[in-house]
Amino acid sequence: MSLSQANVAVVGATGAVGEQMLAVLEEHEFPIGELRLLASERSVGKKIRFRGKEHAVKLLDENAFEGIDIVLSSAGGSVSEKFCPIAAQAGAVCVDNTSAFRMDPDVPLVVPEVNPDDIALYKSTGIIANPNCSTIQMVLVLDALNRVNPIKRVVVSTYQSVSGAGRTAMEELANQSVAIFNGKPVEKKKFPHQIAFNCLPHIDVFLANAYTREEMKMVNETRKIMGIPDFRLTATAVRVPVFSGHSESINIEFESAITPDEAREVLGAYKGITVLDEPEHNVYPVNGDASDKDDVFVGRIRADESVEHGLNLWCVSDNLRKGAATNAVQIAQILRERYL
Amino acid sequence: MSLSQANVAVVGATGAVGEQMLAVLEEHEFPIGELRLLASERSVGKKIRFRGKEHAVKLLDENAFEGIDIVLSSAGGSVSEKFCPIAAQAGAVCVDNTSAFRMDPDVPLVVPEVNPDDIALYKSTGIIANPNCSTIQMVLVLDALNRVNPIKRVVVSTYQSVSGAGRTAMEELANQSVAIFNGKPVEKKKFPHQIAFNCLPHIDVFLANAYTREEMKMVNETRKIMGIPDFRLTATAVRVPVFSGHSESINIEFESAITPDEAREVLGAYKGITVLDEPEHNVYPVNGDASDKDDVFVGRIRADESVEHGLNLWCVSDNLRKGAATNAVQIAQILRERYL
Repeated sequence: MSLSQANVAVVGATGAVGEQMLAVLEEHEFPIGELRLLASERSVGKKIRFRGKEHAVKLLDENAFEGIDIVLSSAGGSVSEKFCPIAAQAGAVCVDNTSAFRMDPDVPLVVPEVNPDDIALYKSTGIIANPNCSTIQMVLVLDALNRVNPIKRVVVSTYQSVSGAGRTAMEELANQSVAIFNGKPVEKKKFPHQIAFNCLPHIDVFLANAYTREEMKMVNETRKIMGIPDFRLTATAVRVPVFSGHSESINIEFESAITPDEAREVLGAYKGITVLDEPEHNVYPVNGDASDKDDVFVGRIRADESVEHGLNLWCVSDNLRKGAATNAVQIAQILRERYL
Repeated sequence: MSLSQANVAVVGATGAVGEQMLAVLEEHEFPIGELRLLASERSVGKKIRFRGKEHAVKLLDENAFEGIDIVLSSAGGSVSEKFCPIAAQAGAVCVDNTSAFRMDPDVPLVVPEVNPDDIALYKSTGIIANPNCSTIQMVLVLDALNRVNPIKRVVVSTYQSVSGAGRTAMEELANQSVAIFNGKPVEKKKFPHQIAFNCLPHIDVFLANAYTREEMKMVNETRKIMGIPDFRLTATAVRVPVFSGHSESINIEFESAITPDEAREVLGAYKGITVLDEPEHNVYPVNGDASDKDDVFVGRIRADESVEHGLNLWCVSDNLRKGAATNAVQIAQILRERYL
């Protein structure tokens, strides 16, 4: 089966991720019949340009999904919890960018390069979950390497941009930075501490085991996507004062020997990864350079002599692109081509 | 022996570290006979206030050290290479904050909480090396824990402020940030890529093994300070767009079991460490809060389930204080009290 054109609804079209969803749908020339932009009452009537045409935002309610084939949802967990089942009931398939259904055993959690066949599992619920941004970019790297040399253990520390916390978080970083340069008091709303010129080891809420939910997402989602329930990984997730792009310092221990050159070759050949690794010319991935790009960038690949078979590397991606919108649109594309 | 008052020369008194040296000498009420501020020609004559009195900067030359007991040097590696032996020849003891002599087997490398007895080894060369900022704050934590439970392996990723690269680096972060908010072009001088709103996995130069010199300092200096030549540690050093304070995500594997509570107790009892670890109240170390403080702050202490006996933690300190000036002044204090 293949649908030559899909009717697509974007839920949360006015948000930071929604904006990127539309940009990626355009860039990827996604074949769309009807495009329906859905949001809460306060955004209804707003006009958004797509492919040179203005589209008015419509109200997200229980009747909003009639005739829709694919829903791209990114308006928050509680919105998805309520409306994804409704959309599925109406016959659409939801690609949900929130954490609402990610760990639901009946819902597939998909990164197309890693586990594309899991998309077929959407049939039981009508929902496919898009993983967390920090997980997606990392799991591409881990899967690429794990296919050639089984991974024993991963230690990851993240450097995550404020864009992952939405538009208000980006405004807070900008406003606080400007206030500091003008000698004005810093106002805090979105983050519990000043984010301007500070690194905060705190993303999402703290859990009973003293990890943040963001850190445990990296552990649990990686296990589900890779299909390895006991995959050994420990994470420290840190918000840094940058506007866009997540960086990750990833330490990997392997079952058997692997050289940095072999890793470079394997990663460079993997779909969706670009290797930028010429330190002698100051070439390595930098978050700002990844903006609005779909790829995951990897560099600083080097042998870790503190274990028998180890590597360190630096992994960067635009968290709103491959970490959210791009991955969702890729799933939608496979859905349209193979399943609808 | 004990010198009731020491004649102290500060080399590089006008730099970012030199300024903190003077602040710490004041705050610690270091008993000083004569204070001599030394710098290169372009700073000669500049006036600097110390204990309510103006001191004119004098020329750093071969005759500058007569009558001096202790030299605190932080004007760059090449300056120390030339002038520390001259000062030692003139009868002074140099506490050198540069990397010039750190790995010299005849020069002790000292963090007073960890290896105070190594100070005695100054006698062969007249020089004591002050370790690198990122090493000092980490080695306090490692030593505290290693004393109660031998460490098998450490994986560290750093989040280092621009102040470690000096005043011009701080200006570059400020200027680039302001330029961005004003829509002006960003000028790069000190850093090879834009540092404003970017994380750069690049501190100091790249070595043949693809690590940076900063990363290898963390490995080699830690081994020397702890006196464990095969201590297993791997590092990723990252410059982040913050003005002051280094943060470190440290993963530690131990020989035997240790709980987060035990680690908190051991760290809290160690001189120079303050534990800030109440995630339920958003209490954890933040670089900006560590400014102008002497302590190393530790939080986010939690069990790492990916190894048999593991912990993750978050370690923050003012890199110009305990990472440089405070550690040097502490060494000088022990010198004065016990050896001069």
